Amino acid sequence: MRIAGSTVAIAGLGLIGGSLARDLAAAGARILAFDRDVDSLRDALDAGVVHALMPPDFAGVEGADAFVLALPVDVAPAALIAAAPRLARVPLLTDVGSTKRSIVAAAERLGLGARFVGGHPLAGDHRAGWRAARAGLFAGARVFLCPAAGARDDAIERARALWLAVGARPEFIDAGAHDERLAWASHLPQAASSALARALAAAGLRPTDLGPGGRDTTRLAASDPALWTAIALDNAPPIAAALERLETELATLRAALLRRDRDAVHAFFAAGRQWHEGAGER
Amino acid sequence: MRIAGSTVAIAGLGLIGGSLARDLAAAGARILAFDRDVDSLRDALDAGVVHALMPPDFAGVEGADAFVLALPVDVAPAALIAAAPRLARVPLLTDVGSTKRSIVAAAERLGLGARFVGGHPLAGDHRAGWRAARAGLFAGARVFLCPAAGARDDAIERARALWLAVGARPEFIDAGAHDERLAWASHLPQAASSALARALAAAGLRPTDLGPGGRDTTRLAASDPALWTAIALDNAPPIAAALERLETELATLRAALLRRDRDAVHAFFAAGRQWHEGAGER
Repeated sequence: MRIAGSTVAIAGLGLIGGSLARDLAAAGARILAFDRDVDSLRDALDAGVVHALMPPDFAGVEGADAFVLALPVDVAPAALIAAAPRLARVPLLTDVGSTKRSIVAAAERLGLGARFVGGHPLAGDHRAGWRAARAGLFAGARVFLCPAAGARDDAIERARALWLAVGARPEFIDAGAHDERLAWASHLPQAASSALARALAAAGLRPTDLGPGGRDTTRLAASDPALWTAIALDNAPPIAAALERLETELATLRAALLRRDRDAVHAFFAAGRQWHEGAGER
Repeated sequence: MRIAGSTVAIAGLGLIGGSLARDLAAAGARILAFDRDVDSLRDALDAGVVHALMPPDFAGVEGADAFVLALPVDVAPAALIAAAPRLARVPLLTDVGSTKRSIVAAAERLGLGARFVGGHPLAGDHRAGWRAARAGLFAGARVFLCPAAGARDDAIERARALWLAVGARPEFIDAGAHDERLAWASHLPQAASSALARALAAAGLRPTDLGPGGRDTTRLAASDPALWTAIALDNAPPIAAALERLETELATLRAALLRRDRDAVHAFFAAGRQWHEGAGER
């Protein structure tokens, strides 16, 4: 897929969709966009990042070279259903959501699997929305690609080319394996950071009471609650298992402290450092 | 206390002691140093940061204007005992440890309380040792000062002046209140980060599997295990209480996910963000 001269329709101009629009427009693509926030759309038009708007029924997407769902994971399946009648000739259908099982299954149920390749760039942080979108967000970032069952080589190659064009590093993975892995790699850190913020709030501490390390550890707690509610509910069983494991680790340290077990306390902290140093790699 | 022309004896040239030596030397102080690592001492001498060495019995400290314990919290009390016979004329005795109750109590028991003002700069991160020490580490950082019972105004003023000279912001607090507060503000984030790293290791994930947010949340897990074992054991009861609260928060989210309770999941993440925005301030 050649980006220059192609037309990319993007549903959702948040951090991810907006940043993608910026980079693809800079690479010479024509960007069609939908967002429920008209201020974001106006800004994006004014900035020359978006060239034409799509209404909520996605009229105009018919002739696009790619359709990118960049909406919260609890909204994306309904948007795909709404757009489906217009997608018959769009050669690449993709998304950017943090969970992949639901949206890939929705595409397959809609008979769009041959052209659907789910995507998830590992480039988010606690910021959200068009105002947080920026050029170069994906440079060097891993992007997981999850082709639907029966996805054609042509669609897979287009998805790969689209992300390479913005500097990301594509990595193919099954949607189920993705969600299982991200429950640990992304959803658990988010939950841990929010839980820590809640514990600190309960103890009467404010963000300004923390040192540099505490600030790092609680940074994700500032993330958009609506986005994360959708992700957490969509991937609930693996996240619940990950949470339980984290609770067990904390309880292990607590028990070691209460019995003043120096060796066990040292082993606890040493394992964390060892993981960083790669000695614990499997 | 005028820094230029004064002599400051520093026991321990790690991240904190080494950075303090750099800044005080730059401000014109003569630095006497002890460290058990001879390579660090040699580097510090070669760099012109340290002007003379002290042996393990701290001979030479007698004429100093200040004695700073910058050793792990499980080592500092013994060092104070070892130095005590030589400290009769040193007008400021202080330290930089992450816990304050034990060292302040040790100073009081040794009859050094009139000149002892415990200190704790909130400037550490996951790095440690002389090689991590750097000029300007304390610029803008809060430093907790915990005068011993009966500490003289003169000693308190010297401690304040010493930290102001390196750009820190002194804040006076009772040693017990400090340890209770830091169990939440510092020790709990460290424990959470280490616990998260352990959980990820158990799930077979490596640091390179994480996105930017996950990397922030696990950064502290790379901290020195020996330093944190000493801190955690020295402040075990408040840390255990904080850990239990964090476990409860995680279990709250887990239960909400398992019963697919959208409102409860949203409330969980929303509270974390609210804390960041200060709406949860007390």
